[in-house]
Amino acid sequence: MNDTDHLTGENRLPQGRTDELRVELGGRGYPIIVQCDAWDSVVNRVRQSLPDLTHTLVVCDEAVRQRWGNPLVEGFGETGRCDLFTVPSGEPSKSLESLGRLWDWMLASGADRRSVVIAVGGGVVGDLAGFAAATYARGIRLVQLPTTLLSMVDSSVGGKTGINLAGGKNLVGAFWQPSLVVIDTATLRTLDDRGYRGGLAEVIKYGLIEDADFFDWLEANADHLLARRDDVVARAIMTCCRIKAAVVADDERETSGRRAILNYGHTFGHAIEATAGYGVFTHGEAVAIGMAMAARLARSLGRIGDEFVARQDVLLTACGLPTRWPEADPQAMVPVMKKDKKVAHALLRFVLPTRIGHVELVACDSLPEIEAAILACR
Amino acid sequence: MNDTDHLTGENRLPQGRTDELRVELGGRGYPIIVQCDAWDSVVNRVRQSLPDLTHTLVVCDEAVRQRWGNPLVEGFGETGRCDLFTVPSGEPSKSLESLGRLWDWMLASGADRRSVVIAVGGGVVGDLAGFAAATYARGIRLVQLPTTLLSMVDSSVGGKTGINLAGGKNLVGAFWQPSLVVIDTATLRTLDDRGYRGGLAEVIKYGLIEDADFFDWLEANADHLLARRDDVVARAIMTCCRIKAAVVADDERETSGRRAILNYGHTFGHAIEATAGYGVFTHGEAVAIGMAMAARLARSLGRIGDEFVARQDVLLTACGLPTRWPEADPQAMVPVMKKDKKVAHALLRFVLPTRIGHVELVACDSLPEIEAAILACR
Repeated sequence: MNDTDHLTGENRLPQGRTDELRVELGGRGYPIIVQCDAWDSVVNRVRQSLPDLTHTLVVCDEAVRQRWGNPLVEGFGETGRCDLFTVPSGEPSKSLESLGRLWDWMLASGADRRSVVIAVGGGVVGDLAGFAAATYARGIRLVQLPTTLLSMVDSSVGGKTGINLAGGKNLVGAFWQPSLVVIDTATLRTLDDRGYRGGLAEVIKYGLIEDADFFDWLEANADHLLARRDDVVARAIMTCCRIKAAVVADDERETSGRRAILNYGHTFGHAIEATAGYGVFTHGEAVAIGMAMAARLARSLGRIGDEFVARQDVLLTACGLPTRWPEADPQAMVPVMKKDKKVAHALLRFVLPTRIGHVELVACDSLPEIEAAILACR
Repeated sequence: MNDTDHLTGENRLPQGRTDELRVELGGRGYPIIVQCDAWDSVVNRVRQSLPDLTHTLVVCDEAVRQRWGNPLVEGFGETGRCDLFTVPSGEPSKSLESLGRLWDWMLASGADRRSVVIAVGGGVVGDLAGFAAATYARGIRLVQLPTTLLSMVDSSVGGKTGINLAGGKNLVGAFWQPSLVVIDTATLRTLDDRGYRGGLAEVIKYGLIEDADFFDWLEANADHLLARRDDVVARAIMTCCRIKAAVVADDERETSGRRAILNYGHTFGHAIEATAGYGVFTHGEAVAIGMAMAARLARSLGRIGDEFVARQDVLLTACGLPTRWPEADPQAMVPVMKKDKKVAHALLRFVLPTRIGHVELVACDSLPEIEAAILACR
């Protein structure tokens, strides 16, 4: 991907305007629509994409039900059947128990194979509702309406769905592509600062793994991003989705290794989340610290120099993200990392950069280097 | 399918001999091996098919663990890691709770993306273990080793996996094709008479829906089948698998309607199981009565005559299967049928015959006719 279109001058997305791209997956391809402040149009967009829609199952984060969920229920209810299921905010909702409750509710709502699940919220709702859609009647259609920056640039695109087990995050799930993703930047206004900044960690990740020009642009626009300037945010989202769509089109089911590059910072990040206790860090904060650790590991392996580490640290910090965790404990983190899905036969693998805009999946069993990278971020 | 090869004379499968066919699904295709009394060879067959096998997760029905499960665990354990999970016999094991326990056990066993699930048992174990394989780490490999006639000719082939909800059977699941199916007729010896006869209902179904010659052959060989003559049973299984493989290759995800023909007798049958209370009838018994009802519905709609109904009844009866249920209650059954996955927007659909060897998916909302078909089998 070498797309410099996002570097051109004027605002491309004034209020109500939209941009669109397609995830190319043959019969499973779908459009991603990015729009500025046009929530009223969402119901019609979904209807246009799925003209045979008669029964919608809106699965909505409790925190955004009033502002973003209720108008949808009203809109879909005008011309068809619409049922609403609310999910308590937060990671514990990605559990077996929630999944069971959601399945039972779908059945009680009379869901059949033509019903459509509409996920409204962040990654927790998207992953849970997506997995329920993937498995109810062995798979029904799904529309993702992400309302957090993190889910807009990451979990809503690409078809990964699933829940957590007591033993770890995202351990069970399915690849299930949505039929449509609509991203409306207006929904970011209801996101708290910490949640929003967490999403910026993933935005920065896309520059680091695949697009040096985008990274430059982010450095130049960090202030506007932090201030949530609509056009800047929309452009950043569009670029991230374009990168992710291309990676997913290359490697839908994470078999070639290509898709693994999206996990830059995540092997450390997941171990940070798990050992800190879920909820201490947001996912984005953990990924930010995880990228700081991964960069240091890459440097100690001679893959990058000091400049990479410094630029990454500076941009993360400028976006209000942490790059250190004083309590980081290699003895606790490494065992968690060994359970990571990227592990192949007990051999630890990391996504590590060679320069800004390029990363590779690397096997690494040098515990001293891994531990040093963790300790360097205390 | 118009395969009369199964009509030729001598026994094709003396002890230790095997027959093989392939389910043609492109990259998801796989072999089905039917063999007579060669359980010792199963471990090697699996290893030949999956040469990179290092970690097997044997999921086994409690009832067959000693006789069929333990030798596998020993065999796989000789050259790799092998863990064993036993599932209590019976439908209640196809629950959310069992699935949660199985997922947790897989994680505790250190399962990763290269681990292989080996399902040993009937449809309950195959469906549960298959769904766990479909979803653990978003999908790992699966080998089906069915030990009941029903699962040999039906659930182990075709990739349907799933569990029950409190509100109904098979309501959630995934399409997940196995990498290999090995059917050994020796395992049928440990099956009780009622369980074995239940499987014959599905065998007869294949003749009725797709292969009139096979139905003739079944009429001529009913006694041998009931006596479990190895070569006759193996030939029947091979024919059923061949029909099912062709149907699945045409319509893997049940989207064209073609695959629905496999559900002949099942819309009524599921309603019989649900209203009688699970466990009163075996699945095969319920399907036998369900086919009796479906044939009567088809006759009242003018699609078939008396001869079809009579021949079907006679063969089912000759195989020790019921065609009547004195307690059948249309008021209880019809609401259950309306929840069937074949229902499209509240319109009931049935798989109905036009002659022996051919069925069609038919919308039918004539409640009086449906009720009369149920009452005719009391």
